[in-house]
Order: sequence, then C-alpha cells, then structure tokens
Amino acid sequence: MMKFSKEVMHVGEMASGAALTVPVYRFKGLGDGPSVYIQANMHGAEVQGNAVIFQLLELLRNMEIMGDITLVPYANPVGCNHKNGEYTLGRFDPITGVNWNRMYHFDESIIKPFVQQCIGKDDATIERDFKLLMIETIEQKLDHNIFGLTTGQRIAYQLQRLAHQADLVLDLHTGPISSKHLYCPEYAKESAQYFDIPHTLLIPNVFDGALDEATFCPWWKLQQAFAELGIEFSITSQQVNKESFTVELGSQEQIDLDVALEDAKSILSYLQHKNVIATTDYQPSTMTRYACYLKDYKAYYSPMGGMVDYLAKFGQPLAAGKPLARILRMDNYGDGDPLHYLSLDQEVIPILHFASASVNQGTELYKVFTNFFTL
Amino acid sequence: MMKFSKEVMHVGEMASGAALTVPVYRFKGLGDGPSVYIQANMHGAEVQGNAVIFQLLELLRNMEIMGDITLVPYANPVGCNHKNGEYTLGRFDPITGVNWNRMYHFDESIIKPFVQQCIGKDDATIERDFKLLMIETIEQKLDHNIFGLTTGQRIAYQLQRLAHQADLVLDLHTGPISSKHLYCPEYAKESAQYFDIPHTLLIPNVFDGALDEATFCPWWKLQQAFAELGIEFSITSQQVNKESFTVELGSQEQIDLDVALEDAKSILSYLQHKNVIATTDYQPSTMTRYACYLKDYKAYYSPMGGMVDYLAKFGQPLAAGKPLARILRMDNYGDGDPLHYLSLDQEVIPILHFASASVNQGTELYKVFTNFFTL
Amino acid sequence: MMKFSKEVMHVGEMASGAALTVPVYRFKGLGDGPSVYIQANMHGAEVQGNAVIFQLLELLRNMEIMGDITLVPYANPVGCNHKNGEYTLGRFDPITGVNWNRMYHFDESIIKPFVQQCIGKDDATIERDFKLLMIETIEQKLDHNIFGLTTGQRIAYQLQRLAHQADLVLDLHTGPISSKHLYCPEYAKESAQYFDIPHTLLIPNVFDGALDEATFCPWWKLQQAFAELGIEFSITSQQVNKESFTVELGSQEQIDLDVALEDAKSILSYLQHKNVIATTDYQPSTMTRYACYLKDYKAYYSPMGGMVDYLAKFGQPLAAGKPLARILRMDNYGDGDPLHYLSLDQEVIPILHFASASVNQGTELYKVFTNFFTL
Amino acid sequence: MMKFSKEVMHVGEMASGAALTVPVYRFKGLGDGPSVYIQANMHGAEVQGNAVIFQLLELLRNMEIMGDITLVPYANPVGCNHKNGEYTLGRFDPITGVNWNRMYHFDESIIKPFVQQCIGKDDATIERDFKLLMIETIEQKLDHNIFGLTTGQRIAYQLQRLAHQADLVLDLHTGPISSKHLYCPEYAKESAQYFDIPHTLLIPNVFDGALDEATFCPWWKLQQAFAELGIEFSITSQQVNKESFTVELGSQEQIDLDVALEDAKSILSYLQHKNVIATTDYQPSTMTRYACYLKDYKAYYSPMGGMVDYLAKFGQPLAAGKPLARILRMDNYGDGDPLHYLSLDQEVIPILHFASASVNQGTELYKVFTNFFTL
Repeated sequence: MMKFSKEVMHVGEMASGAALTVPVYRFKGLGDGPSVYIQANMHGAEVQGNAVIFQLLELLRNMEIMGDITLVPYANPVGCNHKNGEYTLGRFDPITGVNWNRMYHFDESIIKPFVQQCIGKDDATIERDFKLLMIETIEQKLDHNIFGLTTGQRIAYQLQRLAHQADLVLDLHTGPISSKHLYCPEYAKESAQYFDIPHTLLIPNVFDGALDEATFCPWWKLQQAFAELGIEFSITSQQVNKESFTVELGSQEQIDLDVALEDAKSILSYLQHKNVIATTDYQPSTMTRYACYLKDYKAYYSPMGGMVDYLAKFGQPLAAGKPLARILRMDNYGDGDPLHYLSLDQEVIPILHFASASVNQGTELYKVFTNFFTL
Repeated sequence: MMKFSKEVMHVGEMASGAALTVPVYRFKGLGDGPSVYIQANMHGAEVQGNAVIFQLLELLRNMEIMGDITLVPYANPVGCNHKNGEYTLGRFDPITGVNWNRMYHFDESIIKPFVQQCIGKDDATIERDFKLLMIETIEQKLDHNIFGLTTGQRIAYQLQRLAHQADLVLDLHTGPISSKHLYCPEYAKESAQYFDIPHTLLIPNVFDGALDEATFCPWWKLQQAFAELGIEFSITSQQVNKESFTVELGSQEQIDLDVALEDAKSILSYLQHKNVIATTDYQPSTMTRYACYLKDYKAYYSPMGGMVDYLAKFGQPLAAGKPLARILRMDNYGDGDPLHYLSLDQEVIPILHFASASVNQGTELYKVFTNFFTL
Repeated sequence: MMKFSKEVMHVGEMASGAALTVPVYRFKGLGDGPSVYIQANMHGAEVQGNAVIFQLLELLRNMEIMGDITLVPYANPVGCNHKNGEYTLGRFDPITGVNWNRMYHFDESIIKPFVQQCIGKDDATIERDFKLLMIETIEQKLDHNIFGLTTGQRIAYQLQRLAHQADLVLDLHTGPISSKHLYCPEYAKESAQYFDIPHTLLIPNVFDGALDEATFCPWWKLQQAFAELGIEFSITSQQVNKESFTVELGSQEQIDLDVALEDAKSILSYLQHKNVIATTDYQPSTMTRYACYLKDYKAYYSPMGGMVDYLAKFGQPLAAGKPLARILRMDNYGDGDPLHYLSLDQEVIPILHFASASVNQGTELYKVFTNFFTL
Repeated sequence: MMKFSKEVMHVGEMASGAALTVPVYRFKGLGDGPSVYIQANMHGAEVQGNAVIFQLLELLRNMEIMGDITLVPYANPVGCNHKNGEYTLGRFDPITGVNWNRMYHFDESIIKPFVQQCIGKDDATIERDFKLLMIETIEQKLDHNIFGLTTGQRIAYQLQRLAHQADLVLDLHTGPISSKHLYCPEYAKESAQYFDIPHTLLIPNVFDGALDEATFCPWWKLQQAFAELGIEFSITSQQVNKESFTVELGSQEQIDLDVALEDAKSILSYLQHKNVIATTDYQPSTMTRYACYLKDYKAYYSPMGGMVDYLAKFGQPLAAGKPLARILRMDNYGDGDPLHYLSLDQEVIPILHFASASVNQGTELYKVFTNFFTL
C-alpha cells in the first residue's frame, strides 16, 4: 500500500479575503520511473477529471509506483465555483473573458542561450539543467515585478511550477457535449494507442498558452535547437522522455464515477507502458483509433441563428452531404423556411458539439476531424 | 387543409432600440369547439416546446379544426437570446432576477363584484362576460399608469391577453434535466389521462404568478364564489370548459424534432378529447400515470457543496434509503470522507434534477413526488 | 478601551468544498443599554457598509459601551465574490434569481398562541419570552427537515439568529446610484431624526422577507395582538424598545472610507440617543428630513429602450413636468425622434436611479418619493 | 445644410431569428477632402460614443463637408444589449469570452506581393490599389469558406469593410472609470494635439486585432516594405494621409449629452485640421498633453483581494510612494491588518481604474502612464 501526502496550495484571494486553494496529492516513487503530473478541472464546468483523479488515487494507493506522481483536482477554484444560472461559467475569467487554459508561460528566448551552455554536456545533465531552468523561470514569473500578476496567471503559474517537475503531464479536460479525444504532440503519436480514446489530435510545436504546450513545447524547441547545431538530443529517449497530453474525457457538467474508473484504468495503461507503475494489469483496449492534424480539426460555425437538433453521432465518419444538424426557425414558419439541414461537402468525424440548442449566427456548432486517418 | 394566419407581436425594446417580437399563429375554427392557446419558451432555455409547436402546425394544417387555436413559440424574446457562457440564462430576468413565469396578473378582488352582477344570468352569459372582464382587466394593466410596467410584465400581459381569449391553455415548459410531467389543476384531473405524460402534479387554487394559474384560478375562484351563494356554476361543464396546464416536456437546452412529434400527438389526443379537432386518430397511450398533490412535490436541497453523480432514475418509485445521488468531495480525500451517498427515508419518485454536477450547499438537487398515487 | 471578540461563522459550502464564512465582531456591554445588531453587504455590490463597520469598530473600541453590540461585515460571502464582467452580481442568487434580502423568516402564526400564554405576565417577561421564542423558531428552521434549506436561507437564517438577540437592528445597504435614505417602520418615525440621512421611507407592518421586517414585524404584530385583547404592550417603551432599519448609504460598487466615517458617526448619534453608548459627542446634523410612506415610493419604469442621460438631481423636490432624464435613440436618427425627455406630472423627490445608461423598455429607471412631507 | 443617408446594416442573427442590425449614416463630401469613418460602442458598456455621434450629426449637417463621412453608432448589437444584473457585459462575447475589439483582420502576407506589383507606380495609384486590395481581402473573409465565421468576426469584418473605405478612422471607446485618453499610432503623433484629450498613448506597428491597428498597420507596413526597397511612400503625405485612433471618452455605463458636445467639437477640431470640413470654428484647447509609449502603459494588478477605496486622481502625475488606493480587508480586523495602502516606486499618471470596489487578487486595479512626457 502506497502512502501519499496531501498539501493545500494557496493560489489567490477573493474580494472578501476568502482564500483560493487547490489540493495537491503526491506519491513518492519507489524506483526511478518517470515522474508524472495530472491535473483536472482548470475549466470550471469540466469536472469529470476530478472523478478520474479520485479513481486514480483509489487504484494507485494499492499498487507499486516507481516514479513520483502528483495529482491536482479542482485546479481552478475560481472557475469551479462560478455559476451563472444553473451552469458553471468555467472556460474564462468572468471579469476579463480570458480563457483559463491560455495563461501558462513559455518564453522561447531562453532556449538558444541554454543550448550554447550545454554543448558537450551529456543528455542527463542537459535534462536536469533544463528542468531546473524552466522551474526557475516560472518561479521568477511568480515572484513578479511591482505591477503584479493577473488572477489567472497566479493560478496557472503555480500549477505550471508543479508540472515542470514532472516528465509526463496529463491535463484532464472535457468538451462541451463531446466524445473522448486526446491532444497529443506529433512526436508522441506512438503513445496515443495506450489510451482507450478513439480520437487523437496531433498538435505541432506551437505555444498558444495551454498547459500541454507549456510543458512539451520547451523540450521540443530544445531538441530542435540542438538539431540545428547538428547535435542529437532526443526528448523521446528513455533518459529524457517528455510527453504532455490534454485528455478530453467526454462532456462537461457531468460526474460519472463508473466511467471515471474506466478512464483511470486507461491512464494507468499509459503509465504502465511508461514504467511508472510496476504492473501488467492495464492493457489498452483494441479499437479503431482515428487521428488528424490540428490544422485539419475544423470548427463549423452556425450559418444562421436558430434552435439546433444535433443529428450527427460522434466518433464515426460522416459522409459528405449527410446532415450534421437541422436548425429550427419558427419565426420563418408560414412565410419562409422553418427547417434547415446543415451538412459539409467532405467526409468528417464529428467530435463535439455546442452545449445548448440555442445558437446565434456564428456560434461554434461542431468540431470535426477532416483528412483523418487511423493510427 | 386549414389556413392559418401569422402575426408578429411587438412586446418590448432593447437598449439599442431593437424590437422584441413574438410570432403568433392562429387557426380559425370551423365549428364551435373550444378555443385553445398554446405557448412555448417563456423560460429561455426551455426550447423543446418550439419544436412541439412546429409539429403541431404541421399536423393541424392538415386536419379539420373546430375551435380557434392560437400558437405562440419563442414567447420570451429576452430569455430566448440571453447567453452566459454557452448556456441560455432563461429562468429569470437577467437584470432583476425575477422568474419570467411569475409575472402574470390576477387580482382576486374582481370576483365578488362580478358575481353580484351575474345573479340570475345563464352560464353562457356569465362565461362570456367574465372572459371579457379578464381581457379588459389585462388590457387596463397594459395601458398602464404614468409609472409604467416592468420588461417582464409587458411581455407576460400581452401573452396573457391572448390566453384569456381561449378556453384551454397549454404552457409548454421543460425541467432542467427532467422526465415529462404535467401541472394540472385538481379539478381537471380527468383530463390528465389524455396526455402521454406519466407524472401529474395536482395543483390547488392558489395564484403564484404563473400563466396556468393566471388563466384557471379566476374561473375556479368564480365557481367558488357562486358556490358560496348556493349557485351552481361549473367550469368543467361543456359550456364553460376551462382548463390550463403547464406541460413539462423533458430537459432544457435540447431540441429533438422526433420526440416533439410524439409530444404534439399527445397534445392532439387531449384536443381531440375536447372536440377541438374533428378526428379520432389520436388516442392516449396506455401507461401507469402517477400523480401527487403540489404540497407533496418536494425539492431536496443539497446538504453539502460538491460534485454530484446523479444516480436515481426518473419516473420510477425509489425505495426509502436507496441512493438519489453520490457527492464527490475531493478536498476531503485523504483526511475526510470524499464520497457521500444521499438518500431519503421515504419512498419517492424522482422527477427532475439540477442541470449541473457542481452544486453548492443548498442547491436544489432533485424534485420528487412523495405520497404519490396512480391516476 | 473596549475589548471585542471575533468569531468566524460558517454559513455554507461551494462546489469545491470551499467554506463560506462570515466574520462576527462582538462588544459586551458594560451596562444595561439596549443590544444592537449591525450587518453589511447582504447584497454583493453594496459594499460601503463594510467601511462603515470598519469605522464603527475604530470608534466604538475607544468609548464606553453600555449594551451588547454585534457587527457583521461581508454578510453574504456568495454575493460578495460573484463577478459578471467587472461588476458584482450581488442582488440575487446567481443560480435561482432569488433576492438575497427576501429569504428571512417570519411565520405570523406563532403570535396568537404566544399571546394566550402571556396574559397576566409583565412586559419584561413577555419581552424575554418572545425573544426566546423567535430565536428558538429560527433555530428550528436551521435544524431543518430531511429536504434541507436553500443556500440563501442557510445564510439568512444564521444572520437572523444573531439579529433576534438584539433590540436594535441596522441592515446596511446601498442603492444602485443613489442618495442616502432610511427604511424606518412607521412606529419608529421619531428615531429617524437621529440619523444624518435626509430621506426616510416609512414602512408598514408587512413582512416581505427582508431583515428589517423579519425583526420588527414580529414585535409589531405582537403589540397589535395584545391590543386586540385590550392589553397594552408597547414595543417603543424603554423596557421593550425594538427598532429595525435598513440604512441605504448611497451608491453601490464604491468604498469611501472618509464618507464611511461620517456615516459611522450618524449611526453613533442614533445609538447615543438610545443609550447604547455613554457619550454626548454625537449629535445629529440639522437638515431638512423628507419622508414618504412606502406606498408612495414609486418605481418609474422606462417607457422605451435606449441610452439614458440621467438629469434629475437626487434629494431635492422636482417640479411636475421637469425632466427626470433624456433617452437617446440613435436608431431613430434621421427618420424618427432620437431624443426623448421623460417627466412626471406630479412633484417628486428622486432618490435613486438605475446603475447603467443602457436600459430596456421596462427597466426600473428611477425611484421617487411622491406625496412626501418633512419629518 | 448637408444631406445624409441612413442605412441599416444586417450583421447577424440571434437564436430566435432576431436580426442584429447596425445603423450607418453617410455624408457625401462636397470636395476632395479625406474620407472619414467613425464608429462607437463596439464594447457594449462604452456608450458615450453614441452620444458623440449624435452631436456630430447635429453639427455636421449644418456645415460644409469636403470629404465623405461615415458614422456608425451601436456598432455591436450583441454587446450593446447584453445585461448581467444591472450592468452591460460588453467587453467580450458572452459565449466565448473573446474581446469584441480583438476580432478584426489583417494578414501581413499581402504586403510583399503587392509592393512587388507597385514598383514604378505613382503614390495615388498605389493608394487606390491598396485600398481596393484591403476591401477585397475583407470581402473575401466575409464570403467565407464552408466552415463559417464566428459571431464577432461577422460583425467586425462588416465594420472593417466600411472603415477600409476611409482615410481617417476614429473608434470611440471608453475606459471602465477613466480619464479621456487617445490611442495614436507613433507616426501620427502630430495629430494628437488637435484633440482636446490630455493623454496620448503612442502605439507601435503591431497588429493585435483592434480596429485602429487593423486600419493603420497595413499602411504602415506598406510604407516600411517600400522603404526596405529604398522607395519612399509616405502615409502621412497629403495624398495618402492615413490615420486611425481609438478615442477613449471617459467612463463606461454613462451618457452625458453635454460632455458629448464638447467631445464632438474636439473631433471636429481634428477634422478641420485635416480639411474634412470647410470651417475654422473648431480650435483645440490649450492644455498640457501628456504622452507615453504603449510599452510604458502599465497595468497594476491588485496584490490582494479586498475592497478598494481608489485614491489617486486621474490625469495628474502621482509621485513615487504616494498612494494609488487603499484596500479594506475586514476579515483581518482584530487579528491582522485591515487596511492596506498601495503605491508604486516611480512617478506615474493614473489614467483609469477598475469599475468596481470589489477586487480579487490579480484584478487589474489601475492603468498608468510611466516614463511619460509632454507632447
């Protein structure tokens, strides 16, 4: 039976002075397996990851863990508790509108000077020093100048400080109404098959503020910078071994502890593959795993306002011309067209759709894989 | 093939001057069947009624209609279009918090003087004159004094003016996440079996601001006032025949045109029973129909904050002690109780639950029938 | 120098498990002066009362206090911290729309049985027993049945439990954009002149859910019930001495510690008059004090949507026909009337206006005294 | 007396089918003066610009106008009408959180190919062709691909299409609670003195999605691209003469028609200087005009949660160490520090502050000029 520690991290204060806190659970690994960071619920309505962390804790405490594991549920105490009507307004700071998952930090300009210092050093040293540099950089951001930090940066940077200490990072999210899907850096494609997730998005080396990018882009850029100098430094080697994923667990505003157990086992299958846990109990399921590149992951915006009957099923190829949805426009009944069928002129896999039937012209209706292939 | 007319009713103005309008569809009856008023979407997120009105229009235009029918989708153009995040904030005026379905008007003090004037008159005259009185009263409210009307009153009173012209009134709503259920005045219990709705709430003669109450309470009070004088005036007679229902069609934030067709047929079954339509095509389904009195319809408020895995199925009796839900409290993991099962000490039928998994202590978690019986 | 105690009262939990707490400050009186309860910020945006409590604490700790005083800032930790955009959404529960100051409890049916038990008892006994009854009643509400309490009730009842222990109750609020004004029960009119507040609303013995009503209505009803039996029991006697006020300190969304000091001194002037503090330092200012009855306090709803240039100054009589505001309607420029002047056909005193220039048709534009008089 | 035309531009649809429209006013110039585009209220709460456009229309129709002028009030019909509580939630799309003034378009890659085509052409031809290119580019964006446009893009691109037809562009905004200030491209610094605005921000050639940038950056980049080839093409020449400003008129949520008249005259002073109007009536006031570079315009984020008494006056230099604000923390009273004074260690000019007294740790409290100078 593994022991874990629990810490309450202070990440901010509300107007009343109420502290914003985040619970942090830690297992100390028994061996030299890779270290792992898993967080959930950075977007307030995307709660299912908390249930997955619950099930992970229940399972992990009863197995042999070889690398350090840090688990952070309720990562965003502002978003988690912010209601507007019955729903949780959790994708963005209610004051500023800034997406909570676009506030992490990466300044590419640290790479080149670091590489210059590293010429001739061995991979283990480079790995250790770059990890320290990233932690130091984020600590400097937290120990900010006189003008301060935004509410979201203070939360994000503290989470990022924990994440930079790990080799493998999983950020648990959900879509609005959604199938399960995985954001995976292109170089880590092989790992996608260890998750029981039928759809994988392969993402490039571009930092746009999200946690997965903030933790894998620095390493990828580092590898590239060495390569430009003709030096091989591989982040997929067993020594360095850096991967980050955003795991989309399904739909938001839902807790299902039984499904969470399945998702926890899927994560354990990946961790077993990476030798984080000393077991052979967790094997990925056999399934067709579809993938597409991020540039081919398309948002389809509603061509009109109206009320949507979503028709397309998630996760299966939808032929060109087949309806995604039909839109009701009762204001047109009797003197116009009250029912509009929407389709695309190419084959797609619908991955998620908007959370409400009521949409404005231009609301993001569906997100779909185009030019998809199997892994 | 029946003709219908379409009118656009102006119910208000926004800050930009944009007009708030509501479409009104009308069939003129071929005979002397009762007149009907059906509206939908007074609460912004409760959109499915619009789809039911769509299907009703599609069906009605192809049958023989004996009484006048008025259909009003998109009854509340403020609520319908008001988003906060992805969801529609539609239960209350976003400025004042007042529930859109608590703004209708009924002033009981009109009853007694009216009854005094009616002594000796026949039922048809009384019916006609009281209908006129109610229309006149609401028109006086619309033609307000110098201090004006609230945004919600201006909308509600205009809808109510239409509803008072009808004998039978259906207000189409939905719950948050919900089974189908029917609010039915106690005196109209016999009519509940003509709807394909397995749960009926029997409501007393108390006006609390809703449209169904605003249209049946005046008639019921009138009947009672005559009875107090020893005069029989029956509102369930074929001559008077006044009934109002709130029809809860299922869950909010959803449009399903196929389910809407079933619900339209269920309404036609009721209208056929009332001789509004000249057909025998629409028969109610055979099903167990549960009912309870409004005083036994209980809200269950969450005894703690947390994230809810809703367990109880809707519509079936749940034995005392069986779990309604379990609440995850990850902040307690490791040094407290992270999982709480909630149950009641009596048999209930769960009818609806909260729309989100995230609840505060005191959030309305479930609504349940207690002391229920079959119709 | 007076000592005070500080307690942190637990009033609820959020979804993350975060505790909702309220600080409670208490002075123990040196003599037998009346006891006092003062709270602030039940509506989230109405923050200035917290600054007044700060200044009261600063002043009170340096004087001789004869009665117990309880001070509660940040009374509503949900409302206080709830932002939508830059502003605080604080008048109502963001989930349900229920006004936070309409959730207090009073069940009139307790009065008559109590009076029956008291016949022949002296005033001091009656006073003591009724106070105990009210505290016991609210404690029973808190120790609720299996179906639970709403979030707002749990907060309100705990505050009310504290308030029932006091003789004099002050609930510190603000208007949206507002002059200072006082809600005062009709029977306590004499006390209004001890506050430096130029406008007083005289309110009747009607319970509508607010704290002032919840604390004075029971006593007033009690007095009336005795009177109906021909027994004199005076709640304005020195022995019983029960008064409750809602003090409207000006505009919301503002903290001004200098103005707060003036308002604290105004409250001390009242407390000195009531012999709560042993000093003669605080005298009310000489000013014209206008009053009107609650039935004559009129809301004026905007006759159109548009953008409002508020013209009428607060606190001074505005002659009939003089403009309250002008409304810009740029959508009408060129082919309609872009500028509308609004006025009333009677003399009024404008007390407050809406917080934003953008209004819908039917938005509450101004609240005004009509049929006003001087105290 | 000048004639103007009025057009209603359709920019979108809501869920109910309600059209989103924007009024567009146009004067046709009598001569060959520069053309002008002025819009207001892109951010919903920033309404004062509508009043300025009202006053401009009133003044312009009575003078001799030499260049075409287009005026667009109520530019954003979603933001303008979106309430949360009493205030207007207008800085960002309530569904997505995206700032309405970050959705304009500029794709720098059009510059180089265009320049190659222009070698040897005269300035007038280049000016005409580049204007056409920009209009064509934005029309292609509007005539989008099958995946569609967001709600905000559809609005922004239609406004931008109008703006690209003009030489001089003014986007009328306000701060939250704010002094008047002007965003001015560095190259147009000379023009800042024609406005009666005491604070000018000099902004670089960086496109971040705002309208001013979307209209001046293309020209500035064009000038730079020619310069790189050693060709002089001056956008400040009388022939080309391209300038764009964001005019911050003061505080949001307010309409003041009298102040709007002053601001309209200030704009006319600039238009007179540019020979758009044939008059000498409008001269800029003599005042100290402070300026700073955008990089020196600093946001100061609150170092703690609490309730803020804003102390620093706008528009005047504030010495290092002098208080900007004091923050009340009643939860600390008695066992901590209830009052915190905030200051900076350098001289600044406070320009605007947050709209509410209630702030979280990390809320943007003030924006200030540092390293400022006089124009």
